[in-house]
Amino acid sequence: MPERLYLYDTTLRDGQQTQGVQFSVAEKVKIAKALDRLGIDHIEGGWPGANPTDSAFFEEAPETRATLTAFGMTKRAGRSAENDDVLAGVLNARTPAVCLVGKTHDFHVETALGIALDENVENIRASVAHCVAQGREALFDAEHFFDGYLANPGYALDCLRAARDAGARWIVLCDTNGGTMPTEIGRIVSEVIAAGLPGDRLGIHTHNDTETAVAGALAGVDAGARQIQGTLNGLGERCGNANLVSIIPTLLLKEPYASLYTTGVTHEGLKTITQVSRMLDDVLNRVPLKQLAYVGASAFAHKAGLHASAILKDPSTYEHVAPDAVGNERFIPMSNQAGQSNLRRRLMEAGIEVAPGDPALGRILETVKAREAEGYAYDTAQASFEMLARAELGQAADFFEVKRYRVTVERRKTKYDRMGTVSEAVVVVKVDGTKKLSVSESFDETGSDRGPLNALSKALAKDLGPYQEIIDDMRLVDFKVRITQGGTEAVTRVIIDSADGQGRRWSTVGVSANIVDASFEALLDAVRWKLARDVPDTGLRAAE
Amino acid sequence: MPERLYLYDTTLRDGQQTQGVQFSVAEKVKIAKALDRLGIDHIEGGWPGANPTDSAFFEEAPETRATLTAFGMTKRAGRSAENDDVLAGVLNARTPAVCLVGKTHDFHVETALGIALDENVENIRASVAHCVAQGREALFDAEHFFDGYLANPGYALDCLRAARDAGARWIVLCDTNGGTMPTEIGRIVSEVIAAGLPGDRLGIHTHNDTETAVAGALAGVDAGARQIQGTLNGLGERCGNANLVSIIPTLLLKEPYASLYTTGVTHEGLKTITQVSRMLDDVLNRVPLKQLAYVGASAFAHKAGLHASAILKDPSTYEHVAPDAVGNERFIPMSNQAGQSNLRRRLMEAGIEVAPGDPALGRILETVKAREAEGYAYDTAQASFEMLARAELGQAADFFEVKRYRVTVERRKTKYDRMGTVSEAVVVVKVDGTKKLSVSESFDETGSDRGPLNALSKALAKDLGPYQEIIDDMRLVDFKVRITQGGTEAVTRVIIDSADGQGRRWSTVGVSANIVDASFEALLDAVRWKLARDVPDTGLRAAE
Repeated sequence: MPERLYLYDTTLRDGQQTQGVQFSVAEKVKIAKALDRLGIDHIEGGWPGANPTDSAFFEEAPETRATLTAFGMTKRAGRSAENDDVLAGVLNARTPAVCLVGKTHDFHVETALGIALDENVENIRASVAHCVAQGREALFDAEHFFDGYLANPGYALDCLRAARDAGARWIVLCDTNGGTMPTEIGRIVSEVIAAGLPGDRLGIHTHNDTETAVAGALAGVDAGARQIQGTLNGLGERCGNANLVSIIPTLLLKEPYASLYTTGVTHEGLKTITQVSRMLDDVLNRVPLKQLAYVGASAFAHKAGLHASAILKDPSTYEHVAPDAVGNERFIPMSNQAGQSNLRRRLMEAGIEVAPGDPALGRILETVKAREAEGYAYDTAQASFEMLARAELGQAADFFEVKRYRVTVERRKTKYDRMGTVSEAVVVVKVDGTKKLSVSESFDETGSDRGPLNALSKALAKDLGPYQEIIDDMRLVDFKVRITQGGTEAVTRVIIDSADGQGRRWSTVGVSANIVDASFEALLDAVRWKLARDVPDTGLRAAE
Repeated sequence: MPERLYLYDTTLRDGQQTQGVQFSVAEKVKIAKALDRLGIDHIEGGWPGANPTDSAFFEEAPETRATLTAFGMTKRAGRSAENDDVLAGVLNARTPAVCLVGKTHDFHVETALGIALDENVENIRASVAHCVAQGREALFDAEHFFDGYLANPGYALDCLRAARDAGARWIVLCDTNGGTMPTEIGRIVSEVIAAGLPGDRLGIHTHNDTETAVAGALAGVDAGARQIQGTLNGLGERCGNANLVSIIPTLLLKEPYASLYTTGVTHEGLKTITQVSRMLDDVLNRVPLKQLAYVGASAFAHKAGLHASAILKDPSTYEHVAPDAVGNERFIPMSNQAGQSNLRRRLMEAGIEVAPGDPALGRILETVKAREAEGYAYDTAQASFEMLARAELGQAADFFEVKRYRVTVERRKTKYDRMGTVSEAVVVVKVDGTKKLSVSESFDETGSDRGPLNALSKALAKDLGPYQEIIDDMRLVDFKVRITQGGTEAVTRVIIDSADGQGRRWSTVGVSANIVDASFEALLDAVRWKLARDVPDTGLRAAE
């Protein structure tokens, strides 16, 4: 019979200690609901009384299956628990559970608090007892426990016993400065249990200062702790807390955890964890990190040629879990490491059938390699890769030819006697034997200049004769610029993301020493990709 | 007497398997030199023969104290090691060491290679023996070793013994798909040593697919392996490799490692590791992750009020190691009192004296905050920060005023009937009451167009009247472009690095929806910074 492990999330409290992170009440509500759906047991919402947003969150907190928990600290010396206004502020949030942090390291009691050791023990006892008397589930966060235990094990254990005897449901062993290695955590948790603190009342709270927070939390569980504290995406003070987004899939999918334990997260819920992780990045307006364990966009990306060809035979060759178990996807990028089988698979995904051993495969690989040496990057710019392949296969329709373009950026006094910029682009194309001149400025609906690339993109898309209707629903959604090495000198690589009214989204690349020219090249590829898809009788519509 | 641990870096090979990463030869040389200075033992440079950049790198490889290593795979079945062209390509790079990957998991031998089990053992033996016969230090990368050992321990060990008996100096146990938990790694490494493979010939190679790669590598060392393979910043296939930037400080600063082992990295070298980590991000044009263990900008940032005040009493209260041991810095957010003293220190570094409590400090903090919300980044653009502070303090000389500029990029047929681009910039400035027009093209000495920013920079620097002589030795050495969020919409942030004949190098920032305008803003700051330094009688020369 597997044992129950409990998951305690502190994204809304310790996670908010991340540099640059400050959640609004609405954001806290959104994150709490997502944690609840995922199957987390405790959601720590903040420190009521210490900061206005936290207090407001508890007033507007959503109904959750999870136990909503308020965070605070043990009462100060020289007053009773009943008369401590900071503690009262925490209890006033009326949450079913209360988690109080207190000191267990003698050095901190004497240096940071400046009180006697037994006074601190009494503060812990009285504070926990007060919460329990109010009918709350009490948790005690033993700050700096591991350092404290190494310095003075007897005292550190006395602090834990005071919390236990006062009725704390959970005693959480915190590695507050993140300095304890996983092996040490395992050893100390075992000793704590041997000293009479039962494992099913112990939690583990680790930080990532040595990049071992996840392993540290697991070491705590291996030794007998039954609650794990962490945050979504490892948010948190300094290097962050233990990342629940990495820990949860391990607990459900990996041995020995999958057989030994159950949690509140079901396998169905686990399929939403990629989405939960990206939701948090969305709230924070961060680009999701591709390398994240389980949920990153690269977590199941196979770039090495040897790996990619084995994956085609059997995914278990290079994947320790199936991507859909965590709601993620496999990705085989194009790059100069790619083998021919990988190449054929990418072409098939773009609707291009090539027989194994077709000499065109070798030519395409050569062209990809040569162009990547010039600075192109086809693993992100799939649409440019497809256009390159079509050209090598003689499947590229010409549609139109760009004869010339010119783009101007000017900064000068505007009519209100303020300085302002204006960009203007002229593009000359030949379509079906007819020359067409188009011109465009780059102002958005508010009259602000959006720059030369915007003007060029609008001018190019303004008049393509018979193809105009097809590209009318196309728009530029993002562009990325980096300076890279093309052969011997620095060049600019531009990657453009385009989208259309049918909900498609595609990426193209351009490279040049001139940033405008690199952008224009990527724009041209984007337009041609769309035309190749949507112009009737190019034989490519079936490729969808 | 501490034992020697060996560090093997594969940033240039496995690190290049990261999605979107493709190093140029010059970048590989730069990274190899940094690894060598840091004190790494082996630098794996790539797979010669498999890809042109890797082959070119070995031809141009720098002289290193570290052992330069070429990567490849064991010979294929059905031919001799001498006649395997892939293996020949690897040996042709003439590196002192060669690392060959081979299979040790029976499932992979049969599924991916499709050969008999004993044929694979013979491939390993013959390939390693061939390298040794050529006088090379041979390493054997045992792919999928941990999965292979669990499936068929006898066979997996036979593969290792074949490599050992053929003379491999190192046998590297690879957790190729990143699925083995640290505890399991420790157990299996112990069993391998018990089976007769000596620990001082075993390496450990882990991946971060469960966010435990660093702990896995350390578990390998705990069990007796004496070589650690990893990459800078944990670059690598899928979720990345074990991060040497986290492992190295742990080995030198944390127990039990600091007492038990020595490495090629000195405590002096360790002080450069933050810089090495950021150099790699710079090469990749990535924003350094703030949360990185040891080297991140947030690794020693203390945001929580309780933490920040305790840190002021004694830094060891919330820091497990001293930031300067790894060349990093403590950071206390500018929003509180401690923030102001931090700001004063930064100003002093720029030669600006401000008295404690000067209300200008608060104004500068407010301006920095407001502009960072618009997309500016003053942590890298120190010169722009200085110009901002001088403006708030009324210490900014005007020197000149830009009345207007215009830059044009045109692409059209050139005289040889080929398409070519030309950029041209006109800048109008007012200096000492006189209006001056300057115009410049953007061709370099080979007649190639270097783009609009180059033309603008040259036009701006062409005629500044009395100041012309001062900026004549100034040049643009690098620029970086990022699309970022400025308030509610995407803007472009440009960071420009400038240098002058006195060996100074400085960075400035500009932000605008228009990339040309953002660049021009950064250029202006760069010129003004130089003038503030070098124009006589501005009272700033002493600031040097």
